[in-house]
Amino acid sequence: MAKSKLSPKIKLNKENFESLLQERVNNEISKYVINTNEIDESMRYALSNPGKRVRPLLSYLVGDVFNLNLNKLDSTASAIEIIHTYSLVHDDLPCMDDDDLRRGRPTLHVKYSESTAVLAGDAMASLAIDIILHDLNLSSDLKVQLLQFLMKTIGPEGMILGQIQDITFENISVTEEEILKMNELKTGALVEFSMLAPVIIAGEDIKQWEKIAKKVGITFQLIDDLLDIQETEEKLGKAANKDKKKNKKNYPICFGVNRTRDKIKEYQNEVEILLREMNLSDHPISIYINKLFARQK
Amino acid sequence: MAKSKLSPKIKLNKENFESLLQERVNNEISKYVINTNEIDESMRYALSNPGKRVRPLLSYLVGDVFNLNLNKLDSTASAIEIIHTYSLVHDDLPCMDDDDLRRGRPTLHVKYSESTAVLAGDAMASLAIDIILHDLNLSSDLKVQLLQFLMKTIGPEGMILGQIQDITFENISVTEEEILKMNELKTGALVEFSMLAPVIIAGEDIKQWEKIAKKVGITFQLIDDLLDIQETEEKLGKAANKDKKKNKKNYPICFGVNRTRDKIKEYQNEVEILLREMNLSDHPISIYINKLFARQK
Repeated sequence: MAKSKLSPKIKLNKENFESLLQERVNNEISKYVINTNEIDESMRYALSNPGKRVRPLLSYLVGDVFNLNLNKLDSTASAIEIIHTYSLVHDDLPCMDDDDLRRGRPTLHVKYSESTAVLAGDAMASLAIDIILHDLNLSSDLKVQLLQFLMKTIGPEGMILGQIQDITFENISVTEEEILKMNELKTGALVEFSMLAPVIIAGEDIKQWEKIAKKVGITFQLIDDLLDIQETEEKLGKAANKDKKKNKKNYPICFGVNRTRDKIKEYQNEVEILLREMNLSDHPISIYINKLFARQK
Repeated sequence: MAKSKLSPKIKLNKENFESLLQERVNNEISKYVINTNEIDESMRYALSNPGKRVRPLLSYLVGDVFNLNLNKLDSTASAIEIIHTYSLVHDDLPCMDDDDLRRGRPTLHVKYSESTAVLAGDAMASLAIDIILHDLNLSSDLKVQLLQFLMKTIGPEGMILGQIQDITFENISVTEEEILKMNELKTGALVEFSMLAPVIIAGEDIKQWEKIAKKVGITFQLIDDLLDIQETEEKLGKAANKDKKKNKKNYPICFGVNRTRDKIKEYQNEVEILLREMNLSDHPISIYINKLFARQK
């Protein structure tokens, strides 16, 4: 395995990188939500949800490839996880996916109220942006560049467009291409941002990483949809197979489990080749991506 | 009246400044929402609502005091109006204030759907930030400074906190100070930003303007609450006296119409004095603020 370069103080290796980085992002996020009012309390509830912190971990690990110090990635990593959480909180609302459970716990609107969930989501979006704006380790030019990219990622031509497509597709027939595009917007875009932000911070060329990130992002959603169909409610900690009941369109629902597995395998091979071309097959980023591709929950 | 300095091309005077600036902000906003998908369509619907564009007008008029070119204010003015619209769209949701009418037209969730309203609000927030980030007339340092201020204004310690207080106050007893603080957060903060952003862009001292803006912001909400109690549904184009029915706490509900009128008068006098101290009594900013204080709808 390639030696990890992430920080002089933290030596990442195959065994510890996941827990070390999860702890780091949890610790970072906890610094930002400290008040005792209902908004901060509900944000803390959503943000302390024991998620896998996939997106921040992808950021830290790509940053490691470029020998970036962790300090230069902390604000982006936290912002990404907070944005992701905000999108889940709004997505779980009764008028959206209407989910009562998220990773085995009541969703925010169930625990608090719908109005609190709307406002906590809004608050998290602005908090995430504020964290990047106040980063002392990034220049103003870099902050502007990162935030332009982030707004494109989460805005009306990115994540939001994917979410509205997810809803409107319930009532129309769609092609394979349209489903994959919706995945790319709804989930892929923020995964892509997570992997490309460190490349931008490092001042390196994003071309090869764009190809990798796009495929990782779409595949991540394909696996999620596949697991939703296969798993029982207990195993996943959220309402399983709910998508099918709600007339949701996703890849496995429209094209079957086998074709979805083939598609995942195809993208996985392409990502492996792209990482090998950069001599990163033994780097933690490859180990982590392979683990994501093999996940069962 | 002091000669207006806003732009070499546009001569503002007492008669035309309001319509000229309203037209300018409407024209600016229309440039940003151009796609044909449901999100852009619903955003266009909300943004084309024939509002008074109070906040952008305050920005342009304060900018005029500092001889700023309009070009340097366009992105901020548009962003402010889009943020204001996003907050109304979320505020009108059934789980929030549950309003069906906004300026005589169906609210966004009535016209489209609740899910579209949640997502359109989210999209407008990121669009507004993106507009400032892409302004070619502002330096990166200035963009970062303005956006830090904007996030503080609309985030979990600003507008959002005011909105959650507005809801939680329904079920508890509150003091005059708490009501005024809630007004300041919920409505005042964005009005303050509108008046202080041009001072920051001009690189001038905000101290005196902070005092003015804070009082204008709170007074604006006091007048709104007073009109809500006094006016009929037809006259206002939205559900009148609804606040009282929902057990909302606001200044006139808690302390009566007369004391509210006194409070408005007190703040109006203070603002007049502060503007006079800067020799701005005849400037369009004073004329416009006086018009806002005298408004009947």
